[in-house]
Amino acid sequence: MQTIEKLLTRFDPLTGVIDGEPTVKRHLRDLRDCFADSASYDAALAAGDPLIYSVASVEPANGAGDLQYGLGRLMPGCIGNEYFMTKGHLHSWREAGEFYFGLSGEGVMLLENEKTGESRMVSLRPHQAVYVPGLTAHRTINVGTTPLTYLGVFPAKAGHDYSAMAERNFRCVVVERNGEPVMLERKNLS
Amino acid sequence: MQTIEKLLTRFDPLTGVIDGEPTVKRHLRDLRDCFADSASYDAALAAGDPLIYSVASVEPANGAGDLQYGLGRLMPGCIGNEYFMTKGHLHSWREAGEFYFGLSGEGVMLLENEKTGESRMVSLRPHQAVYVPGLTAHRTINVGTTPLTYLGVFPAKAGHDYSAMAERNFRCVVVERNGEPVMLERKNLS
Repeated sequence: MQTIEKLLTRFDPLTGVIDGEPTVKRHLRDLRDCFADSASYDAALAAGDPLIYSVASVEPANGAGDLQYGLGRLMPGCIGNEYFMTKGHLHSWREAGEFYFGLSGEGVMLLENEKTGESRMVSLRPHQAVYVPGLTAHRTINVGTTPLTYLGVFPAKAGHDYSAMAERNFRCVVVERNGEPVMLERKNLS
Repeated sequence: MQTIEKLLTRFDPLTGVIDGEPTVKRHLRDLRDCFADSASYDAALAAGDPLIYSVASVEPANGAGDLQYGLGRLMPGCIGNEYFMTKGHLHSWREAGEFYFGLSGEGVMLLENEKTGESRMVSLRPHQAVYVPGLTAHRTINVGTTPLTYLGVFPAKAGHDYSAMAERNFRCVVVERNGEPVMLERKNLS
Protein backbone atom coordinates (compact mmCIF):
# COMPACT_ATOMS: atom_id res chain seq x y z
CA MET A 1 0.00 0.00 0.00
CA GLN A 2 1.12 3.58 -0.50
CA THR A 3 2.55 5.54 2.39
CA ILE A 4 0.23 7.47 4.69
CA GLU A 5 1.59 10.65 3.15
CA LYS A 6 0.14 9.63 -0.22
CA LEU A 7 -3.19 8.56 1.27
CA LEU A 8 -3.91 11.51 3.58
CA THR A 9 -3.93 15.16 2.55
CA ARG A 10 -4.97 18.29 4.39
CA PHE A 11 -6.85 21.10 2.62
CA ASP A 12 -6.52 24.69 3.71
CA PRO A 13 -9.44 26.61 2.14
CA LEU A 14 -8.02 29.88 3.47
CA THR A 15 -4.85 29.61 1.40
CA GLY A 16 -5.93 27.14 -1.30
CA VAL A 17 -3.01 24.91 -0.36
CA ILE A 18 -2.93 21.13 0.03
CA ASP A 19 0.08 20.41 2.23
CA GLY A 20 3.04 19.28 0.17
CA GLU A 21 1.24 19.21 -3.17
CA PRO A 22 1.89 21.37 -6.26
CA THR A 23 -0.20 24.47 -6.92
CA VAL A 24 -0.80 26.09 -10.32
CA LYS A 25 -1.46 29.83 -10.28
CA ARG A 26 -3.32 31.75 -12.99
CA HIS A 27 -2.97 35.50 -13.24
CA LEU A 28 -5.03 37.97 -15.24
CA ARG A 29 -2.55 37.80 -18.13
CA ASP A 30 -3.25 34.06 -18.46
CA LEU A 31 -6.96 34.69 -19.11
CA ARG A 32 -6.79 36.77 -22.29
CA ASP A 33 -9.86 36.11 -24.48
CA CYS A 34 -11.83 34.60 -21.59
CA PHE A 35 -13.54 37.91 -20.85
CA ALA A 36 -15.99 39.40 -23.34
CA ASP A 37 -15.13 43.05 -22.64
CA SER A 38 -11.62 43.29 -24.07
CA ALA A 39 -11.30 47.04 -23.43
CA SER A 40 -11.96 46.52 -19.70
CA TYR A 41 -9.57 43.56 -19.73
CA ASP A 42 -6.77 45.62 -21.28
CA ALA A 43 -7.39 48.46 -18.83
CA ALA A 44 -7.29 46.07 -15.87
CA LEU A 45 -4.11 44.40 -17.12
CA ALA A 46 -2.44 47.79 -17.62
CA ALA A 47 -3.14 48.53 -13.95
CA GLY A 48 -1.63 45.26 -12.69
CA ASP A 49 -1.67 41.51 -13.09
CA PRO A 50 -3.45 40.08 -10.05
CA LEU A 51 -3.74 36.43 -9.15
CA ILE A 52 -7.15 35.22 -10.35
CA TYR A 53 -7.08 31.60 -9.18
CA SER A 54 -4.97 28.71 -8.03
CA VAL A 55 -5.45 24.96 -8.21
CA ALA A 56 -3.64 22.53 -5.90
CA SER A 57 -3.79 18.99 -7.22
CA VAL A 58 -3.13 15.46 -5.98
CA GLU A 59 -2.44 12.42 -8.14
CA PRO A 60 -2.34 9.49 -5.73
CA ALA A 61 -2.26 6.87 -8.52
CA ASN A 62 -2.85 6.45 -12.25
CA GLY A 63 -4.67 3.16 -12.73
CA ALA A 64 -7.90 2.70 -14.71
CA GLY A 65 -10.02 2.83 -11.53
CA ASP A 66 -8.08 5.58 -9.76
CA LEU A 67 -9.22 9.11 -8.98
CA GLN A 68 -7.35 12.39 -8.72
CA TYR A 69 -8.49 15.55 -7.00
CA GLY A 70 -7.77 19.19 -6.42
CA LEU A 71 -8.55 22.29 -4.40
CA GLY A 72 -9.47 25.42 -6.35
CA ARG A 73 -9.39 28.95 -4.97
CA LEU A 74 -10.86 31.69 -7.14
CA MET A 75 -10.65 35.35 -6.15
CA PRO A 76 -13.62 37.75 -6.19
CA GLY A 77 -13.74 40.53 -8.76
CA CYS A 78 -15.00 41.60 -12.17
CA ILE A 79 -13.72 42.68 -15.57
CA GLY A 80 -16.39 45.11 -16.67
CA ASN A 81 -19.50 43.37 -15.35
CA GLU A 82 -18.17 39.85 -15.92
CA TYR A 83 -17.09 37.92 -12.84
CA PHE A 84 -13.63 36.42 -12.35
CA MET A 85 -13.58 32.88 -13.72
CA THR A 86 -11.34 29.91 -14.44
CA LYS A 87 -10.22 29.12 -17.98
CA GLY A 88 -12.57 26.17 -18.14
CA HIS A 89 -11.89 22.83 -19.74
CA LEU A 90 -13.14 19.64 -21.28
CA HIS A 91 -11.65 16.29 -20.34
CA SER A 92 -9.32 14.71 -22.86
CA TRP A 93 -11.23 11.50 -22.20
CA ARG A 94 -14.56 13.07 -23.07
CA GLU A 95 -16.70 10.53 -21.17
CA ALA A 96 -15.05 11.47 -17.86
CA GLY A 97 -17.30 13.26 -15.36
CA GLU A 98 -16.17 15.41 -12.45
CA PHE A 99 -17.49 15.98 -8.95
CA TYR A 100 -17.29 19.51 -7.51
CA PHE A 101 -18.03 20.46 -3.90
CA GLY A 102 -18.17 23.97 -2.48
CA LEU A 103 -16.09 24.74 0.61
CA SER A 104 -16.33 28.52 1.03
CA GLY A 105 -17.61 31.57 -0.81
CA GLU A 106 -20.34 31.97 -3.42
CA GLY A 107 -19.88 30.63 -6.91
CA VAL A 108 -21.56 29.20 -9.94
CA MET A 109 -20.42 26.72 -12.54
CA LEU A 110 -21.01 27.29 -16.22
CA LEU A 111 -21.61 23.98 -18.01
CA GLU A 112 -21.78 23.61 -21.78
CA ASN A 113 -22.57 20.43 -23.66
CA GLU A 114 -19.88 19.99 -26.29
CA LYS A 115 -22.21 18.54 -28.90
CA THR A 116 -25.32 20.70 -28.51
CA GLY A 117 -23.95 23.90 -26.95
CA GLU A 118 -26.71 23.65 -24.32
CA SER A 119 -25.55 25.72 -21.35
CA ARG A 120 -26.45 25.80 -17.68
CA MET A 121 -25.48 27.95 -14.73
CA VAL A 122 -25.43 25.90 -11.51
CA SER A 123 -24.89 27.21 -7.97
CA LEU A 124 -21.68 26.20 -6.14
CA ARG A 125 -21.70 27.02 -2.44
CA PRO A 126 -20.52 25.36 0.76
CA HIS A 127 -22.01 21.86 1.13
CA GLN A 128 -23.35 21.91 -2.42
CA ALA A 129 -22.17 19.36 -4.96
CA VAL A 130 -22.23 19.91 -8.71
CA TYR A 131 -21.91 16.90 -10.96
CA VAL A 132 -20.31 17.65 -14.32
CA PRO A 133 -21.31 14.92 -16.80
CA GLY A 134 -19.00 13.69 -19.54
CA LEU A 135 -18.81 15.69 -22.79
CA THR A 136 -19.42 18.89 -20.82
CA ALA A 137 -17.13 21.92 -20.77
CA HIS A 138 -17.02 23.49 -17.31
CA ARG A 139 -15.84 26.76 -15.85
CA THR A 140 -15.99 28.01 -12.26
CA ILE A 141 -17.07 31.60 -11.54
CA ASN A 142 -16.87 33.60 -8.31
CA VAL A 143 -20.09 35.62 -7.94
CA GLY A 144 -19.44 36.67 -4.32
CA THR A 145 -17.17 39.06 -2.47
CA THR A 146 -14.79 36.55 -0.83
CA PRO A 147 -12.52 33.84 -2.28
CA LEU A 148 -14.44 30.85 -3.62
CA THR A 149 -12.87 27.53 -2.67
CA TYR A 150 -14.02 24.13 -3.87
CA LEU A 151 -12.77 20.62 -4.42
CA GLY A 152 -12.93 18.64 -7.62
CA VAL A 153 -12.61 14.86 -8.05
CA PHE A 154 -12.17 13.17 -11.44
CA PRO A 155 -11.00 9.87 -12.95
CA ALA A 156 -7.20 9.69 -13.10
CA LYS A 157 -7.37 9.06 -16.82
CA ALA A 158 -9.66 12.08 -17.51
CA GLY A 159 -6.92 14.48 -18.64
CA HIS A 160 -7.51 18.22 -19.16
CA ASP A 161 -8.18 19.75 -22.57
CA TYR A 162 -8.05 23.56 -22.38
CA SER A 163 -7.48 24.16 -26.08
CA ALA A 164 -10.97 23.39 -27.41
CA MET A 165 -12.64 26.03 -25.23
CA ALA A 166 -9.79 28.52 -25.71
CA GLU A 167 -10.35 28.36 -29.46
CA ARG A 168 -14.11 28.86 -29.60
CA ASN A 169 -14.82 30.13 -26.05
CA PHE A 170 -17.92 29.28 -24.02
CA ARG A 171 -21.16 30.15 -25.76
CA CYS A 172 -22.47 31.97 -22.69
CA VAL A 173 -21.09 34.50 -20.22
CA VAL A 174 -22.07 35.16 -16.63
CA VAL A 175 -22.42 38.84 -15.76
CA GLU A 176 -23.62 40.87 -12.82
CA ARG A 177 -27.03 42.49 -13.25
CA ASN A 178 -28.56 44.32 -10.27
CA GLY A 179 -26.27 42.43 -7.93
CA GLU A 180 -27.17 38.97 -9.26
CA PRO A 181 -25.37 36.65 -11.68
CA VAL A 182 -27.15 36.24 -15.01
CA MET A 183 -26.20 33.90 -17.85
CA LEU A 184 -26.35 35.50 -21.31
CA GLU A 185 -25.42 34.32 -24.79
CA ARG A 186 -22.12 35.85 -25.75
CA LYS A 187 -23.42 36.79 -29.19
CA ASN A 188 -26.21 38.86 -27.64
CA LEU A 189 -23.91 41.09 -25.57
CA SER A 190 -24.37 44.72 -26.45
CA MET B 1 -27.79 17.58 -20.58
CA GLN B 2 -29.42 16.34 -17.40
CA THR B 3 -31.76 18.60 -15.45
CA ILE B 4 -30.35 20.96 -12.85
CA GLU B 5 -31.92 18.72 -10.22
CA LYS B 6 -29.63 15.88 -11.27
CA LEU B 7 -26.53 18.08 -11.45
CA LEU B 8 -26.86 20.01 -8.18
CA THR B 9 -27.31 18.47 -4.75
CA ARG B 10 -27.27 19.98 -1.27
CA PHE B 11 -25.61 18.19 1.64
CA ASP B 12 -26.80 18.62 5.19
CA PRO B 13 -24.02 17.35 7.48
CA LEU B 14 -26.26 17.89 10.51
CA THR B 15 -28.83 15.34 9.36
CA GLY B 16 -26.77 13.28 6.88
CA VAL B 17 -29.37 13.99 4.21
CA ILE B 18 -28.82 14.94 0.57
CA ASP B 19 -32.06 16.65 -0.53
CA GLY B 20 -34.26 14.27 -2.47
CA GLU B 21 -31.80 11.36 -2.54
CA PRO B 22 -32.18 7.92 -0.92
CA THR B 23 -30.60 7.19 2.47
CA VAL B 24 -29.61 3.76 3.78
CA LYS B 25 -29.68 3.34 7.55
CA ARG B 26 -27.67 0.77 9.51
CA HIS B 27 -28.66 -0.12 13.06
CA LEU B 28 -26.72 -2.05 15.66
CA ARG B 29 -28.46 -5.29 14.64
CA ASP B 30 -27.03 -4.90 11.12
CA LEU B 31 -23.45 -4.95 12.44
CA ARG B 32 -23.34 -8.38 14.05
CA ASP B 33 -19.80 -9.86 13.81
CA CYS B 34 -18.23 -6.47 13.09
CA PHE B 35 -17.36 -5.94 16.75
CA ALA B 36 -14.76 -8.14 18.44
CA ASP B 37 -16.40 -8.16 21.88
CA SER B 38 -19.52 -10.24 21.21
CA ALA B 39 -20.65 -10.23 24.85
CA SER B 40 -20.69 -6.42 24.91
CA TYR B 41 -22.44 -6.42 21.53
CA ASP B 42 -25.18 -8.75 22.77
CA ALA B 43 -25.62 -6.70 25.93
CA ALA B 44 -25.90 -3.46 23.93
CA LEU B 45 -28.39 -5.00 21.50
CA ALA B 46 -30.51 -6.30 24.37
CA ALA B 47 -30.75 -2.72 25.65
CA GLY B 48 -31.84 -1.31 22.29
CA ASP B 49 -31.03 -1.11 18.62
CA PRO B 50 -29.70 2.39 17.95
CA LEU B 51 -28.95 3.86 14.57
CA ILE B 52 -25.20 3.51 13.97
CA TYR B 53 -24.83 5.18 10.58
CA SER B 54 -26.58 6.36 7.45
CA VAL B 55 -25.39 6.83 3.89
CA ALA B 56 -27.17 9.09 1.40
CA SER B 57 -26.10 8.38 -2.14
CA VAL B 58 -26.35 9.99 -5.57
CA GLU B 59 -26.00 8.23 -8.91
CA PRO B 60 -26.07 10.99 -11.52
CA ALA B 61 -25.07 8.67 -14.38
CA ASN B 62 -23.65 5.21 -15.09
CA GLY B 63 -21.19 5.57 -17.95
CA ALA B 64 -17.60 4.31 -17.94
CA GLY B 65 -16.27 7.77 -17.02
CA ASP B 66 -18.97 8.72 -14.54
CA LEU B 67 -18.70 9.15 -10.79
CA GLN B 68 -21.14 8.56 -7.98
CA TYR B 69 -20.99 9.97 -4.47
CA GLY B 70 -22.47 9.84 -1.03
CA LEU B 71 -22.71 11.48 2.38
CA GLY B 72 -21.99 9.29 5.38
CA ARG B 73 -23.02 10.09 8.95
CA LEU B 74 -21.64 7.83 11.69
CA MET B 75 -22.74 8.20 15.29
CA PRO B 76 -20.31 8.35 18.25
CA GLY B 77 -20.16 5.45 20.69
CA CYS B 78 -18.43 2.20 21.62
CA ILE B 79 -19.15 -1.50 22.01
CA GLY B 80 -16.79 -2.45 24.82
CA ASN B 81 -13.76 -0.33 23.92
CA GLU B 82 -14.28 -0.58 20.16
CA TYR B 83 -15.61 2.50 18.40
CA PHE B 84 -18.77 2.57 16.28
CA MET B 85 -17.88 1.76 12.66
CA THR B 86 -19.32 1.10 9.22
CA LYS B 87 -19.51 -2.43 7.84
CA GLY B 88 -16.69 -1.70 5.44
CA HIS B 89 -16.40 -2.90 1.88
CA LEU B 90 -14.29 -3.66 -1.14
CA HIS B 91 -15.31 -2.52 -4.59
CA SER B 92 -16.73 -5.18 -6.90
CA TRP B 93 -14.44 -3.69 -9.55
CA ARG B 94 -11.35 -4.15 -7.44
CA GLU B 95 -9.23 -1.53 -9.22
CA ALA B 96 -11.67 1.24 -8.29
CA GLY B 97 -10.36 3.80 -5.79
CA GLU B 98 -12.45 6.10 -3.60
CA PHE B 99 -12.02 9.67 -2.40
CA TYR B 100 -13.15 10.49 1.15
CA PHE B 101 -13.38 13.97 2.62
CA GLY B 102 -14.19 14.84 6.23
CA LEU B 103 -16.97 17.36 6.89
CA SER B 104 -17.52 17.25 10.66
CA GLY B 105 -16.45 15.23 13.69
CA GLU B 106 -13.35 13.13 14.36
CA GLY B 107 -12.83 9.86 12.56
CA VAL B 108 -10.32 7.42 11.20
CA MET B 109 -10.42 5.08 8.25
CA LEU B 110 -9.20 1.51 8.51
CA LEU B 111 -7.63 0.40 5.22
CA GLU B 112 -6.62 -3.18 4.47
CA ASN B 113 -4.89 -4.38 1.33
CA GLU B 114 -6.84 -7.36 0.07
CA LYS B 115 -3.78 -9.26 -1.15
CA THR B 116 -1.27 -8.65 1.64
CA GLY B 117 -3.50 -7.85 4.63
CA GLU B 118 -1.36 -4.77 5.27
CA SER B 119 -3.46 -2.39 7.36
CA ARG B 120 -3.37 1.33 8.06
CA MET B 121 -5.33 3.68 10.27
CA VAL B 122 -5.67 7.12 8.63
CA SER B 123 -7.17 10.27 10.18
CA LEU B 124 -10.45 11.61 8.73
CA ARG B 125 -11.36 15.08 9.95
CA PRO B 126 -12.86 18.23 8.43
CA HIS B 127 -10.86 19.38 5.40
CA GLN B 128 -8.83 16.17 5.33
CA ALA B 129 -8.98 13.88 2.32
CA VAL B 130 -8.25 10.16 2.44
CA TYR B 131 -7.52 8.36 -0.81
CA VAL B 132 -8.49 4.69 -0.77
CA PRO B 133 -6.52 2.88 -3.50
CA GLY B 134 -7.94 -0.02 -5.46
CA LEU B 135 -7.81 -3.52 -3.93
CA THR B 136 -8.23 -1.96 -0.50
CA ALA B 137 -11.00 -2.80 1.97
CA HIS B 138 -12.10 0.32 3.85
CA ARG B 139 -14.13 1.03 6.96
CA THR B 140 -14.96 4.36 8.61
CA ILE B 141 -14.75 4.70 12.39
CA ASN B 142 -15.98 7.51 14.67
CA VAL B 143 -13.33 8.15 17.36
CA GLY B 144 -14.91 11.38 18.64
CA THR B 145 -17.92 12.42 20.68
CA THR B 146 -20.08 13.96 17.94
CA PRO B 147 -21.45 12.54 14.66
CA LEU B 148 -18.78 12.03 12.01
CA THR B 149 -19.88 13.17 8.56
CA TYR B 150 -17.91 12.74 5.36
CA LEU B 151 -18.36 12.50 1.64
CA GLY B 152 -17.17 9.69 -0.61
CA VAL B 153 -16.69 9.81 -4.39
CA PHE B 154 -16.09 6.69 -6.51
CA PRO B 155 -16.31 5.50 -10.12
CA ALA B 156 -19.90 4.70 -11.11
CA LYS B 157 -18.84 1.20 -12.10
CA ALA B 158 -17.05 0.48 -8.77
CA GLY B 159 -19.87 -1.47 -7.12
CA HIS B 160 -19.89 -2.42 -3.45
CA ASP B 161 -18.81 -5.85 -2.19
CA TYR B 162 -19.67 -6.27 1.48
CA SER B 163 -19.55 -10.05 1.56
CA ALA B 164 -15.79 -10.58 1.38
CA MET B 165 -15.12 -8.56 4.54
CA ALA B 166 -18.22 -9.92 6.29
CA GLU B 167 -16.87 -13.45 5.83
CA ARG B 168 -13.33 -12.98 7.09
CA ASN B 169 -13.61 -9.59 8.87
CA PHE B 170 -10.91 -6.92 8.92
CA ARG B 171 -7.59 -8.15 10.25
CA CYS B 172 -7.30 -5.21 12.65
CA VAL B 173 -9.60 -3.44 15.09
CA VAL B 174 -9.53 0.15 16.34
CA VAL B 175 -10.06 0.48 20.08
CA GLU B 176 -9.90 3.26 22.63
CA ARG B 177 -6.80 3.20 24.88
CA ASN B 178 -6.31 6.10 27.31
CA GLY B 179 -8.66 8.24 25.25
CA GLU B 180 -6.87 7.64 21.94
CA PRO B 181 -7.66 5.32 19.01
CA VAL B 182 -5.18 2.47 18.63
CA MET B 183 -5.07 -0.12 15.85
CA LEU B 184 -4.49 -3.69 17.05
CA GLU B 185 -4.45 -7.06 15.31
CA ARG B 186 -7.74 -8.83 15.99
CA LYS B 187 -5.94 -12.10 16.79
CA ASN B 188 -3.96 -10.39 19.57
CA LEU B 189 -6.99 -9.14 21.49
CA SER B 190 -7.08 -10.45 25.00
